[in-house]
Amino acid sequence: MATTGKVIKCKAAVAWEPNKPLVMEEIEVAPPEANEVRIKIVATGICHTDLYHLYEGMDEGGFPAVLGHEGAGIVESVGPGVTEFQPGDKVIPLIIPQCRECRFCKNPNTNQCEKGWDGGDDVKVFDSRLTCRGKKVLQFMGTSTFSEYTVVNQMAVAKIDPAAPLDKVCLLGCGISTGYGAAVNTAKVEPGSTCAVFGLGAVGLAAVMGCQAAGAKMIIAVDINPEKAEKAKVFGATDFVNPKDHSKPISQVLSEMTDGGVDFSLECVGNVGVMRSALESCVRGWGVSVLVGWTDLYDVATRPLQLIAGRTWKGSLFGGFKSKDGVPQMVKGYLDKKVKVDEFITHNMTLDQVNDAIELMKQGKCIRSVLSVSPQ
Amino acid sequence: MATTGKVIKCKAAVAWEPNKPLVMEEIEVAPPEANEVRIKIVATGICHTDLYHLYEGMDEGGFPAVLGHEGAGIVESVGPGVTEFQPGDKVIPLIIPQCRECRFCKNPNTNQCEKGWDGGDDVKVFDSRLTCRGKKVLQFMGTSTFSEYTVVNQMAVAKIDPAAPLDKVCLLGCGISTGYGAAVNTAKVEPGSTCAVFGLGAVGLAAVMGCQAAGAKMIIAVDINPEKAEKAKVFGATDFVNPKDHSKPISQVLSEMTDGGVDFSLECVGNVGVMRSALESCVRGWGVSVLVGWTDLYDVATRPLQLIAGRTWKGSLFGGFKSKDGVPQMVKGYLDKKVKVDEFITHNMTLDQVNDAIELMKQGKCIRSVLSVSPQ
Ligand SMILES: NC(=O)c1ccc[n+]([C@@H]2O[C@H](COP(=O)([O-])OP(=O)(O)OC[C@H]3O[C@@H](n4cnc5c(N)ncnc54)[C@H](O)[C@@H]3O)[C@@H](O)[C@H]2O)c1
Ligand SMILES: NC(=O)c1ccc[n+]([C@@H]2O[C@H](COP(=O)([O-])OP(=O)(O)OC[C@H]3O[C@@H](n4cnc5c(N)ncnc54)[C@H](O)[C@@H]3O)[C@@H](O)[C@H]2O)c1
Ligand SMILES: [Zn+2]
Ligand SMILES: [Zn+2]
Ligand SMILES: [Zn+2]
Ligand SMILES: [Zn+2]
Repeated sequence: MATTGKVIKCKAAVAWEPNKPLVMEEIEVAPPEANEVRIKIVATGICHTDLYHLYEGMDEGGFPAVLGHEGAGIVESVGPGVTEFQPGDKVIPLIIPQCRECRFCKNPNTNQCEKGWDGGDDVKVFDSRLTCRGKKVLQFMGTSTFSEYTVVNQMAVAKIDPAAPLDKVCLLGCGISTGYGAAVNTAKVEPGSTCAVFGLGAVGLAAVMGCQAAGAKMIIAVDINPEKAEKAKVFGATDFVNPKDHSKPISQVLSEMTDGGVDFSLECVGNVGVMRSALESCVRGWGVSVLVGWTDLYDVATRPLQLIAGRTWKGSLFGGFKSKDGVPQMVKGYLDKKVKVDEFITHNMTLDQVNDAIELMKQGKCIRSVLSVSPQ
Repeated sequence: MATTGKVIKCKAAVAWEPNKPLVMEEIEVAPPEANEVRIKIVATGICHTDLYHLYEGMDEGGFPAVLGHEGAGIVESVGPGVTEFQPGDKVIPLIIPQCRECRFCKNPNTNQCEKGWDGGDDVKVFDSRLTCRGKKVLQFMGTSTFSEYTVVNQMAVAKIDPAAPLDKVCLLGCGISTGYGAAVNTAKVEPGSTCAVFGLGAVGLAAVMGCQAAGAKMIIAVDINPEKAEKAKVFGATDFVNPKDHSKPISQVLSEMTDGGVDFSLECVGNVGVMRSALESCVRGWGVSVLVGWTDLYDVATRPLQLIAGRTWKGSLFGGFKSKDGVPQMVKGYLDKKVKVDEFITHNMTLDQVNDAIELMKQGKCIRSVLSVSPQ
């Protein structure tokens, strides 16, 4: 390629500071260094975690940054030592790496590679190769897909089937895989079980889809936005409950609907009060509740006897998928028509419209907006 | 028996009100009704849950009561419909029933029979057959072993090997089975794993024993009372840590000792701060923390990302043992010298000395005091 080995100047949406709209800027993307891959981003979704970083997380040190972590693109060039990827490969950048060598990667029960997120910081996993106006710009979740180009370590890149449409499968880079996997891999939903999913954004709807794929017989979709009810049915929900329609606590409503509580619940909102409700909606004895929603500002709490009574509380990062292994499988699932993706896309826009797309999510008016970033 | 079908007048220690010493009284024990068994209690331990009810639980409605729930005795008579027990059988009254018929009993993954504790109240499981000074006296945890006689529903009585010494195996009625089972059944400690046990009363020491039986390679015993260190080694602890010896948070101390945290932790204190520390002492990715300590006055809390990072939070009631099945197995384990019991007993006293025995536990001066109740 003509750009190989050179700095690329391209467009990106930069988050200069919290609580402000993103600014379209020309940024510089340095060539990939050892073990790195430079990717032309073709399309990206917007996930609530982008909004969390911008509006909720209060991470003062997390700016300036290029947000976006649900993208798909094409390899532009590779750095020294990269043999797995070649220019032209279709890829999805990954929010957690899979180094295949650490004790976490070697353990079949976790996807939390030690080269990645350490349970705290979400912007400083790898060095950023992005600069703008003379300043280093952080890479959000190691990816930064609100940019025409980005550089990612090869242990955080998945090569996908060349037949995959990038403006669809980009959503498998976060939200859909996260929700689906949380049900299938983390909760391990069982055939014939009763489930409740709190929060019906893309993550929650994908969790509904995961519950259905796992054979749940009753899937109660819960959201305070009544407009989500119809969409939930598309993914397999058998019931919809709006907590605002009830004066009783939602855990009591679900307990009455299910003769004692659901077998599995998934919190896909990112609200510690909802997390507590989700746990307490589970049946005692064996109920399992999984946190998927992302928030770390407040404690999540319950009474000890809720757990002593036999409930299990877990959390799920990227749906428990080992990232490099899981994403190509999810892409295959989509191509084989076993995993829905198109049904999540309510809006198609361009990167220039990113602030409008963010506004749509804030107002609960979209499931996923897909932004086209670079021409393919 | 001469007493069959008649009210028995006998000695019992009555808790008339919270925060007061127990009072030795003559009480009346009615004959067993349908499906009930009247038991002559031969020996009883004292468990911290008795102290919780008396001093901490603030359960105004829970008095007057006869406490004690870690006893062993001999069947005196049986009510109509009881075929499984006969006068003279050696038995242990159970703090949770096993009806063998409900959906909880039929599920192999839980011991929380729906005929028993429902996650809330601990004194009103079955009707009490005890009265004193003209008043109904509640049966604590359905058992009331601080009495020469008690009446228990047959679904909460375990028949044990006639060779078992009652003044030892009484401890299998609660503390030892609870701690051992929490490690083996609930945490499912794995061979070669690293474990931490917080709180080294009988429950915690039994958890240490369970970790050892499960093949843990490192068992860190944690207590603020340095006198517990020696005892912990008897049960298999490889290390002892006193949080008071460190200025760092204990979770950080354990994380440094284990290169990132333990695989399994068990809280056997009953303190929500310690419960949080126990969770946060686990390794991310797959760490499992189990609440065993009993308290319900305050919320237990953590940051959501502690769970998102791959930790699992569970609780254990009676060590996860299905009670009627589990207790005879534990008795067999003791007779086969696979389960230690004698090593827990630091004091032998009589029921009249129950307040002294309570005082010993409050002051951390005993592991278990065994009280002889009725002559055998
Ligand atoms: N764990 C992970 O790896 C991971 C990955 C991606 C996203 N997330 C998190 O998942 C959550 C959902 O993401 P999304 O992109 O689907 O968000 P979204 O904003 O599209 O959807 C959130 C939904 O929750 C609903 N909601 C809000 N308050 C509610 C309440 N009290 N009760 C019930 N429903 C309520 C909203 O109406 C909305 O439908 C976010 O917290 C996000 O940060 C986590
Ligand atoms: N879940 C169940 O089914 C069940 C059954 C029985 C007992 N329990 C509970 O288990 C707990 C232990 O019971 P026990 O009879 O062994 O009690 P105990 O009083 O003999 O032992 C408690 C131990 O905890 C230690 N401790 C206190 N504060 C501590 C701290 N901050 N850090 C570390 N150690 C600390 C004490 O020094 C003591 O050694 C109690 O809460 C009891 O109610 C639960
Ligand atoms: Zn996301
Ligand atoms: Zn790794
Ligand atoms: Zn007890
Ligand atoms: Zn039952």
